[in-house]
Amino acid sequence: MVQIPNQPAPPSPAQRSVPTSADVARLAGVSRATVSYVLNNTSAVRISEPTRRRVHEAAKELGYVPHAAARSLRAGHSRMVLMPAPHVAANPLYSGFIYEIQWALSRLDYTVVQYGSIGLHGDEAARAWAELRPVAVIVPGAGLGPKGVAVLKRSGARAVVTMGPEPVEGAHGMCLDHGEVGRSAAAHLLARGCRRIGVVVPEERGLSVYSRPRLTGVQQAAQGTGATVTELPLAYEEEAAAALAARWRSLGLDAVFAYNDEYAMLLMRALQDEGIDIPEETAVIGADDLVLGRLLRPRLSTVHLELPAGRDLAELVDRAVREPGGVPETHQMLRSRVVHRESS
Amino acid sequence: MVQIPNQPAPPSPAQRSVPTSADVARLAGVSRATVSYVLNNTSAVRISEPTRRRVHEAAKELGYVPHAAARSLRAGHSRMVLMPAPHVAANPLYSGFIYEIQWALSRLDYTVVQYGSIGLHGDEAARAWAELRPVAVIVPGAGLGPKGVAVLKRSGARAVVTMGPEPVEGAHGMCLDHGEVGRSAAAHLLARGCRRIGVVVPEERGLSVYSRPRLTGVQQAAQGTGATVTELPLAYEEEAAAALAARWRSLGLDAVFAYNDEYAMLLMRALQDEGIDIPEETAVIGADDLVLGRLLRPRLSTVHLELPAGRDLAELVDRAVREPGGVPETHQMLRSRVVHRESS
Repeated sequence: MVQIPNQPAPPSPAQRSVPTSADVARLAGVSRATVSYVLNNTSAVRISEPTRRRVHEAAKELGYVPHAAARSLRAGHSRMVLMPAPHVAANPLYSGFIYEIQWALSRLDYTVVQYGSIGLHGDEAARAWAELRPVAVIVPGAGLGPKGVAVLKRSGARAVVTMGPEPVEGAHGMCLDHGEVGRSAAAHLLARGCRRIGVVVPEERGLSVYSRPRLTGVQQAAQGTGATVTELPLAYEEEAAAALAARWRSLGLDAVFAYNDEYAMLLMRALQDEGIDIPEETAVIGADDLVLGRLLRPRLSTVHLELPAGRDLAELVDRAVREPGGVPETHQMLRSRVVHRESS
Repeated sequence: MVQIPNQPAPPSPAQRSVPTSADVARLAGVSRATVSYVLNNTSAVRISEPTRRRVHEAAKELGYVPHAAARSLRAGHSRMVLMPAPHVAANPLYSGFIYEIQWALSRLDYTVVQYGSIGLHGDEAARAWAELRPVAVIVPGAGLGPKGVAVLKRSGARAVVTMGPEPVEGAHGMCLDHGEVGRSAAAHLLARGCRRIGVVVPEERGLSVYSRPRLTGVQQAAQGTGATVTELPLAYEEEAAAALAARWRSLGLDAVFAYNDEYAMLLMRALQDEGIDIPEETAVIGADDLVLGRLLRPRLSTVHLELPAGRDLAELVDRAVREPGGVPETHQMLRSRVVHRESS
């Protein structure tokens, strides 16, 4: 339990008008404990319907809102599931995924809160998150270590779920091995007869947690095949893509895995503007299977990612909240398959 | 001040191990008040450097993390700025905007928390947000009314900023008049000689707060010019766009404002697949000025939106937190200009 210090500072002028449960109790003519029982739907104590109604009416009239933290102190835990907000502007696949998680958890009566952790890293971020006393924490990407997991658990989080390349000690692991995306793309290009494969590595910060394993996956797939793998740093800007396209023929590549569909669209346009035929001269494959890939000409081949379903993740969280002592589960979650269209 | 009830429930087994400030005090050999002073950096009380160090070391050893809510009770307010998480998967312009706000507020030592409000609407949502006791709330879109603003303020929020079409009583208003986007697009199309204008209205839920004012803006601009305006409902799916394109010629339109760049890309592809020449037969204009518009052929004309700078918004929030009694400010924030490329 968290201790409220004995000497609180006097309320500031802006606060004096904030209604308290004591005000509600006075207006309803009941004890503060009764207000607490009614507004928190405590089933252990019997309270008559008229009294309940009086408390609710008084709370409404005063505009009293219970304090989530105080309520969580009483309940033993909150219903808040914390996720760090992404450090980069989210792409459509990821923002759809976040939306799905929110939806699935809200069905189980949890509230998802995305915490803006700009400037905070690793275990330091974990300490900041812990201050909100979430009942569960879902952390996409790498970065949170065993220490951070321990901080969260000691502060009362019953479930910590990481969604990185590898499980983290003490946490449930929804393992997303992005190497698999690279291996799928490369296997496809190799099967199409390509032997000099370029791999786009975005220069935007915060993406390397995905782009490095994808590159490694391509390298793994190419091993022993005689194919070469060339790293292609690229910023998401028209000018950067034009510059890369201008020196394309000197690179001698017959295929490119363009990181994702958005970078593929950017690069494909620049290559086409240089008169490079796709897929004849260079095959192109993206990843994420966004709608836009089907709108390109030639239609974009892509790696379709199956992220964990929001419902599966929500159920894992709920299970862990109910049985916080359970052994951490590890699931390999990312499956991928190539959608072959016209660009490869 | 929020009241902690006198009869808290016994801590659950999972909680017994959560270290408290009392544990820190015991280990450091100081009073709980001293722990509180040290960990909250209270400057009003002098505490020797060795004592400070002992407290910090004890807190570290035990893995004690202060409770944000308890801390905010002491400080009089939290540093949490709450924003509702979007109800739809965010588009690139919006997610970039959210990122900028987070960054600007973190520079002023605030933390942005995006609250997943799925299933909550209007003033009901305001009550849920109020439970977290944010010091400020920023609400994009319409939906929050004067009652919701009052609930938030009574619960201690010093600043409520709405970013909708019109100011809301009691709140600061960063007014985003999306009618302006429609008027700009229509004025451009009319100046190009178009007289039969289609306006795409996305069928996806949650977008009508933007799409309806944009349509109205086009209608306003067309008034008295003899031009007709035709509403075109469209889902963000290839099949829906193909169906619309198949009956395009029967609609007799010479121009279309496609809601935004993403819908414009979808519709333009479908029209081109039908052999409709852009801009000869139909001029197309989008909105948002995304990179992808420059990658299309013909290059997409668009309405460039200037959203409020994250820094301006952060400064408004900070000003309001410091002087919560001030008169609510209203700013007209959305400016737009047409970027004329090849599609119109």
